[in-house]
Amino acid sequence: MSADTTRWSAQVEVLLRSGIADPQGATIERALPALGFAGVDGVRTGKSFRFDLTAVDEASALAQATEVADRLLANPVIEESTVVVVPATDA
Amino acid sequence: MSADTTRWSAQVEVLLRSGIADPQGATIERALPALGFAGVDGVRTGKSFRFDLTAVDEASALAQATEVADRLLANPVIEESTVVVVPATDA
Repeated sequence: MSADTTRWSAQVEVLLRSGIADPQGATIERALPALGFAGVDGVRTGKSFRFDLTAVDEASALAQATEVADRLLANPVIEESTVVVVPATDA
Repeated sequence: MSADTTRWSAQVEVLLRSGIADPQGATIERALPALGFAGVDGVRTGKSFRFDLTAVDEASALAQATEVADRLLANPVIEESTVVVVPATDA
């Protein structure tokens, strides 16, 4: 690891925008009472991605991870993505 | 909302256990250099679920959400789940 670059761990969560039909979530919600879970609602399903990247600082890492999410991982027409970046624990 | 129950928002992240082949993650990792992203590796893909539930306290909410995750959302043989519970923002 050189002095001016650090490894970062990114987590990207991609969920369907509210208003977009989520049949998988509706199916899970319908199945829960039969399994004994009452009072669970608002089930939303999506995708999760984790990856490591190299950047000089946290702002740069977040910008890079957000661009990866918008260009490759999410369809911005129907999905919204949430990006979190933390320093990588393993050097 | 009664005095002894509160609404909680749960987030469940389901990722393949390390050692289980993740071809979707491998494909994303292979596509990134062509899009101009260097230095990204360790791509892991999974599922994300969000739902609201009713419980008397945070420990109970976490236990209930973890049981939902283990019984319905994840296949514990090949997947591991991470559960986070926070107080619901909308009453």
